[in-house]
Amino acid sequence: MGEVVRIMGIDPGLRRCGWGVIEAEDNRLRFVACGTLTPRTDAGLAERLAELNAGLCEVLDKFLPHEVAVEETFVNQGVRSALILGQARGVALMTPAARGLPVAEYAANLVKKSVVGTGHAEKAQIGLMVKILLPTADFKGADAADALAIAICHAHHRVSARRARVIA
Amino acid sequence: MGEVVRIMGIDPGLRRCGWGVIEAEDNRLRFVACGTLTPRTDAGLAERLAELNAGLCEVLDKFLPHEVAVEETFVNQGVRSALILGQARGVALMTPAARGLPVAEYAANLVKKSVVGTGHAEKAQIGLMVKILLPTADFKGADAADALAIAICHAHHRVSARRARVIA
Repeated sequence: MGEVVRIMGIDPGLRRCGWGVIEAEDNRLRFVACGTLTPRTDAGLAERLAELNAGLCEVLDKFLPHEVAVEETFVNQGVRSALILGQARGVALMTPAARGLPVAEYAANLVKKSVVGTGHAEKAQIGLMVKILLPTADFKGADAADALAIAICHAHHRVSARRARVIA
Repeated sequence: MGEVVRIMGIDPGLRRCGWGVIEAEDNRLRFVACGTLTPRTDAGLAERLAELNAGLCEVLDKFLPHEVAVEETFVNQGVRSALILGQARGVALMTPAARGLPVAEYAANLVKKSVVGTGHAEKAQIGLMVKILLPTADFKGADAADALAIAICHAHHRVSARRARVIA
């Protein structure tokens, strides 16, 4: 019996931020919980980011992960989108780090490769594979499935990625 | 004698984040404090953002501003720079908002116009004008001077910009 590590994956976004918590013990994975945070869209940007922070704090308090993993999102929709996504991503990285938790980052294609076996998988394939790897996972949308995929990726790579560094 | 409002301006950045606190009473402005936060560059991104958050919390605790203003930074250096700046900016917006403080955003050219009189001022002109408007200001670099300029801009526009909205 190995050490049981509780991992939280985060798929950051301002409108929809997916999160998923799993437990890893040697090569075994177990689903714990997942969900999607949806800060109000009718508030100011700072308030929406504060709501995202509060939501992540609630999840961290409830499920007490030991380690956190965040996807290094690829942005191909211009500078304005990158700035907006960056703001949500900053909060997603900072919130667990401010509690002293190690936060790892993974490139999107490594997350896909870890779960589906190829770096060019479709969204739907990720959901299907997450469901096979974590049969009890009850995710309702792609954001929570992606967050679980990030957590699975970290379970596979965590020994070599203990510190918050990007693995491409 | 009008109401005294304490305003904190923030010029967000991951390597250098300027901050400046002023008091506004009717049309009079008074310098309170300013500085530059410089998170370690040898730590992981999440840790650096957590350090930025901790630094901003310290300033908020010490100077207890009533309102906060953040510059809507213009990015013209590509998607990657925008993502990095966005991450620091997300923390700068979220940290005061998480304490329930109103956070206003101002476009860079409005900040320049409020302080120098034109939207196309040079960095050096901003510092000179901040020194004229706040004679006791002891800023040592452009980041703290810019943060004070943002606070001055908010002092001029705060009545119409109570909520966190961008004014272009």
